[in-house]
Amino acid sequence: MRLARYVLDGLQGVAAAGTNGAFYGLTVHDEGFPGDIDELVAQGPAALAAAAMTCLKGKPIDLERAFLLPPLARPGKILCIGLNYADHSAEFEALVPDYPVVFARFHSGLIGHGDIIERPRISNKLDYEGEFVAVIGKRGKHIAHADALDHVIGYSLFNDVSVRDYQMRTPQWTIGKNFDRSGPFGPWLMTADELPAGCKGLRLRTRLNGAVVQDASTDDMIFDVATLVATLSEGLTLEPGDMIVTGTPAGVGGARTPPLWMKDGDIVEVELDGFGTLRNSVRDE
Amino acid sequence: MRLARYVLDGLQGVAAAGTNGAFYGLTVHDEGFPGDIDELVAQGPAALAAAAMTCLKGKPIDLERAFLLPPLARPGKILCIGLNYADHSAEFEALVPDYPVVFARFHSGLIGHGDIIERPRISNKLDYEGEFVAVIGKRGKHIAHADALDHVIGYSLFNDVSVRDYQMRTPQWTIGKNFDRSGPFGPWLMTADELPAGCKGLRLRTRLNGAVVQDASTDDMIFDVATLVATLSEGLTLEPGDMIVTGTPAGVGGARTPPLWMKDGDIVEVELDGFGTLRNSVRDE
Repeated sequence: MRLARYVLDGLQGVAAAGTNGAFYGLTVHDEGFPGDIDELVAQGPAALAAAAMTCLKGKPIDLERAFLLPPLARPGKILCIGLNYADHSAEFEALVPDYPVVFARFHSGLIGHGDIIERPRISNKLDYEGEFVAVIGKRGKHIAHADALDHVIGYSLFNDVSVRDYQMRTPQWTIGKNFDRSGPFGPWLMTADELPAGCKGLRLRTRLNGAVVQDASTDDMIFDVATLVATLSEGLTLEPGDMIVTGTPAGVGGARTPPLWMKDGDIVEVELDGFGTLRNSVRDE
Repeated sequence: MRLARYVLDGLQGVAAAGTNGAFYGLTVHDEGFPGDIDELVAQGPAALAAAAMTCLKGKPIDLERAFLLPPLARPGKILCIGLNYADHSAEFEALVPDYPVVFARFHSGLIGHGDIIERPRISNKLDYEGEFVAVIGKRGKHIAHADALDHVIGYSLFNDVSVRDYQMRTPQWTIGKNFDRSGPFGPWLMTADELPAGCKGLRLRTRLNGAVVQDASTDDMIFDVATLVATLSEGLTLEPGDMIVTGTPAGVGGARTPPLWMKDGDIVEVELDGFGTLRNSVRDE
């Protein structure tokens, strides 16, 4: 199932895709409105599936005409993984990590599919990073590797847009990863049952103005989804609505010669085979 | 004014201190219950003051008998500043930063005054870091330095408990700063009008089992509160409920020879003159 949050004609709604690929949705004013996807995620896969079936009784929604919101309204912890593809570590002359490199995002910087990435006034070093996201659906601490994927309820896409000079200005990347409007997330949540276990073996591509700038297989991740879930849960409890943003492969603009920075008017897309495409435009602050 | 969130006899409440220093509170079932402090912070200083006056009509609350919650129920961004006292930078052989070093905490790791810090199963390198917190009460971006303190509605205390080996295991500190039950915050929110501007000139001390282990003046901060507010808001919008955890001075356990780690049964206190004391105990996971 695919579930999306949207606003259409001023009303917020939840839409689900039918077997024909078309989306049908219910708004907050419609009978049977299932509530935010966050609540459904916390209730588990059966509730999510039931809500999707209910949404399919709604009216057809043209997602390209609707204003899409991030699939989660109130994400929990946004755990971003750095340097999780060996070729990306190499392009930044970083060592291949022997433990997941974690940094955090605040949810206030997230935007949905089709929304506008902001190029900040104080920097022109705005870079893309195509990634996929594992969304946690089941609480756990010290989760065994063998059970880890049972805690992932679904997947989505993320563009971990980075203000490179601010990211590198101090030893901690956080500020450069949390500028306003720097976290495109969506377009939808796809339940885990519709994708290979752990999103393995899928082609992940980023395009800038139509040109492919990142192209990798999710098999190239250093720490796969199950390992990330198991390892992170050794220190902190994972909870429904937490997001693991799994890292980006080689090809980012800041590692090119000359660098390729995003600018006003650019269109950037992150595509995962079998999932779909997250597309956003860039506008100057 | 000082405002605290508590649970007493199974009911959640908000308490305020009168001029005699005693706290009086209203629970969710009492008429006039003002709602969570978060909402009052978003409404501004006048709403906060009015709510405090209402709470003073409630019944006396013994804060040492009540279970205290973190002053904010749903903090926004928790922006932690690293290496913000020169003597602490020196003890970690780090350069004195020329730009604030920011890392993030997730609110799921926060606990209140009197609650239990957890020493994790996977590490015995549990360290204290006494700090004070500036709580944002007014939205802003590109905030001028001269206006910055108008955006701070109040202050509180924080123990930025760190799992040092995990903090240092990769270049990003995030995981070692976000273990479960590692973020004591409280005991209360004190409105900015009751403290010197920017919390300047105050003595900040940490005690472990009664022995002073950190002792500094807030004047020794490299980036003061106004500078932090102005600088951070160049990249991201500050919003009511955001927290700036302003950094710790020298004396942390991990920089001592031999190291001084916290262990099961320890009592750790962070005290800021004119504010009060945040006290927590340590228990093994």
